[in-house]
Amino acid sequence: MNDQTTILPECDRIGYRYKTRGRTISEADIIFHGGQTGDQFSGHMDAEAAKATRYGQRIAHGTLTLSIAMGLKFTTDGVSGANRISYGYDRVRYRGPVFIGDTIHVEVEVTKSEMEERHNNRRRIVESMNVLNQRGETVLSVDHILVRWI
Amino acid sequence: MNDQTTILPECDRIGYRYKTRGRTISEADIIFHGGQTGDQFSGHMDAEAAKATRYGQRIAHGTLTLSIAMGLKFTTDGVSGANRISYGYDRVRYRGPVFIGDTIHVEVEVTKSEMEERHNNRRRIVESMNVLNQRGETVLSVDHILVRWI
Amino acid sequence: MNDQTTILPECDRIGYRYKTRGRTISEADIIFHGGQTGDQFSGHMDAEAAKATRYGQRIAHGTLTLSIAMGLKFTTDGVSGANRISYGYDRVRYRGPVFIGDTIHVEVEVTKSEMEERHNNRRRIVESMNVLNQRGETVLSVDHILVRWI
Amino acid sequence: MNDQTTILPECDRIGYRYKTRGRTISEADIIFHGGQTGDQFSGHMDAEAAKATRYGQRIAHGTLTLSIAMGLKFTTDGVSGANRISYGYDRVRYRGPVFIGDTIHVEVEVTKSEMEERHNNRRRIVESMNVLNQRGETVLSVDHILVRWI
Amino acid sequence: MNDQTTILPECDRIGYRYKTRGRTISEADIIFHGGQTGDQFSGHMDAEAAKATRYGQRIAHGTLTLSIAMGLKFTTDGVSGANRISYGYDRVRYRGPVFIGDTIHVEVEVTKSEMEERHNNRRRIVESMNVLNQRGETVLSVDHILVRWI
Amino acid sequence: MNDQTTILPECDRIGYRYKTRGRTISEADIIFHGGQTGDQFSGHMDAEAAKATRYGQRIAHGTLTLSIAMGLKFTTDGVSGANRISYGYDRVRYRGPVFIGDTIHVEVEVTKSEMEERHNNRRRIVESMNVLNQRGETVLSVDHILVRWI
Repeated sequence: MNDQTTILPECDRIGYRYKTRGRTISEADIIFHGGQTGDQFSGHMDAEAAKATRYGQRIAHGTLTLSIAMGLKFTTDGVSGANRISYGYDRVRYRGPVFIGDTIHVEVEVTKSEMEERHNNRRRIVESMNVLNQRGETVLSVDHILVRWI
Repeated sequence: MNDQTTILPECDRIGYRYKTRGRTISEADIIFHGGQTGDQFSGHMDAEAAKATRYGQRIAHGTLTLSIAMGLKFTTDGVSGANRISYGYDRVRYRGPVFIGDTIHVEVEVTKSEMEERHNNRRRIVESMNVLNQRGETVLSVDHILVRWI
Repeated sequence: MNDQTTILPECDRIGYRYKTRGRTISEADIIFHGGQTGDQFSGHMDAEAAKATRYGQRIAHGTLTLSIAMGLKFTTDGVSGANRISYGYDRVRYRGPVFIGDTIHVEVEVTKSEMEERHNNRRRIVESMNVLNQRGETVLSVDHILVRWI
Repeated sequence: MNDQTTILPECDRIGYRYKTRGRTISEADIIFHGGQTGDQFSGHMDAEAAKATRYGQRIAHGTLTLSIAMGLKFTTDGVSGANRISYGYDRVRYRGPVFIGDTIHVEVEVTKSEMEERHNNRRRIVESMNVLNQRGETVLSVDHILVRWI
Repeated sequence: MNDQTTILPECDRIGYRYKTRGRTISEADIIFHGGQTGDQFSGHMDAEAAKATRYGQRIAHGTLTLSIAMGLKFTTDGVSGANRISYGYDRVRYRGPVFIGDTIHVEVEVTKSEMEERHNNRRRIVESMNVLNQRGETVLSVDHILVRWI
Repeated sequence: MNDQTTILPECDRIGYRYKTRGRTISEADIIFHGGQTGDQFSGHMDAEAAKATRYGQRIAHGTLTLSIAMGLKFTTDGVSGANRISYGYDRVRYRGPVFIGDTIHVEVEVTKSEMEERHNNRRRIVESMNVLNQRGETVLSVDHILVRWI
């Protein structure tokens, strides 16, 4: 495993950190996501009913925030994306509401990077992600598991 | 915990199972999701480039499949949804590709249901979900953690 | 006809009433509906021109309000939907404007329920619908004709 | 009432006929309409379940066909549209299915045109519409009631 | 060439002028266009980052404004559109920002109209377009080259 | 002007070339673009009418192809995008049809790069673009004028 350490891409090394660009979440995003997924819960779709919730207004679907967070990590520079597939997520936690007009971005840190035991030509990388709004509050956290073929 | 067992809603009991309706995934879904999230990876957006992948065609974003799977669990009958919030997910695993024209549905089983130690007026329920395509293949699995206030 | 009265589903009985959930109408809904239908009338698409109308602002297309009202009646509980098809509407009347930000819901009452003469295995049900905004004003009324095979 | 007969716009005269342009209905239209309205009925959204229906495939929502039919009547020439508002519809009848890939157009005939008794500065016009597919089959018929201020 | 001058359609004559209807640009338009095209530049998609630009807020993509401007020239009256194809544009100049909520319309003047030398059954027409916002400021100008077969 | 030549970013140098990723154009793209822009021309929206055209099928709007071509040049690597604004286009020429299912990409070459006379802290760069389909045919060409502040 030592050999690979020297030729390990920067983005696969434990401690590697980066921030993504930001994305403002709009009313249209929530309405469309509710339509595309079928999740028509009042807390997303009915401003009047939402007044009676603890938030007092409509909030984004967790899946909308999660999907956009993953998309914000997509880059067109062809480096990190190559040979890495999205294996799954662990510990997806919805930590706070996302309101219409909030802007989210993602802060990422590689917290795990090791060759798999069973498939010794595959490296498993974990990017721990915190999704923050414009007030610096964490709205979502997730460990994104990626796999790269060597 | 015994008291609650007798008044526990069916949908909160370990072993409770159900299947959702189905949803056919279209090319438009993938293109829109890629646009809404910013994930413009060729494997989703470029049919020519996708011919050179192991799948030979474009595939849906994992987040699209996950989002629609969660939406398929939304029901308008007001029973299970009430007082339950989506806390997060564990062990989200992308198990197989979803192609244009595939139809997915979700099979759900409650695998955990217990009062929380720290917040003793909250019950934590885990719905273990398998997302299947029309050939019966599992494309995604996830443990959905829900919390209900008592 | 007496036999059926005892086994008639609640939702098919004259006098049966229910309210739907609500839906807030957004600017995006109007713009998209105008695009999808081709109805690009200034009163929907041009905020400046709309200032000169009696409403002083843009309004939703009648067909948008009607379509969403019908969709609000869709439920995933499988009871009322089964074996009932949408035969048509009578007396669709646009009673008032729907503005961006208004929230609509539907109040429904079954006002007719009888076996058809010509097709004696078919029951015709009329759901009289009033679509209300958040101020309690009726914006649209329609008699929805449904047919159920016995 | 005779005076107006001589200055009646052609489009307000009984017997006036016209055909609209056509519009091909896509899978994306159905998926979006189902999302925007919340009508997620399997017959529209699930190709596998739709195989078991009498149609053998997914069909468009009646409200989608009706909305697009109304939109096809919108013209940018400023003649017929001016001073006429959409009052409502009578006898909306869903006559046949609309499948993905079908192309619809509307054939219109003015069947009523009279000054209103109660509001004698208003003329009520009825445009009887038949919506046809590319095989010449009628899929929808509706009497569109329009009102023009004189 | 003289012969055609007498039978030249009004819309093909130098000096012919017209104004289009207006269209209000929404946040949803910008988000969708950014998604459909892949142009996710912060100045369009991130309200917080946009505060730091010279405009202080998000702006529409130039291609969105250009596309809608071209669409505003589409009419359903069948006169100008017939036999004219869109050959291309010269001197597309982005002259000013378009903000969320701005309403644009187009002012058009035919500045060129001549038979082509190489294809003497084709007439080339140039429609010089200025796209204005509701404050009368020019946000975009373009020479639209159209070709009509005689 | 010599000083700058040595510190000129690669992407600003005459002769600099690159290719973008690809994007498959779908029926949904065309329908949505027609809706968003108001260009409802039959050649885009009516498959039956399109059979009678020289192409025999529907084609994409030129503005759709142009917008997606511009978006394909957007990269998230922050190098070329910084300090460069889109000034406009010259010689936009629609060279061939784009059909549903075609995949386009862009080939770019910097053909001009000079300091502006009037604003001597601004460099004007021209990226000459050819948009190709999967058969290698050029469907669109355009000179994209960019301006960078020094």
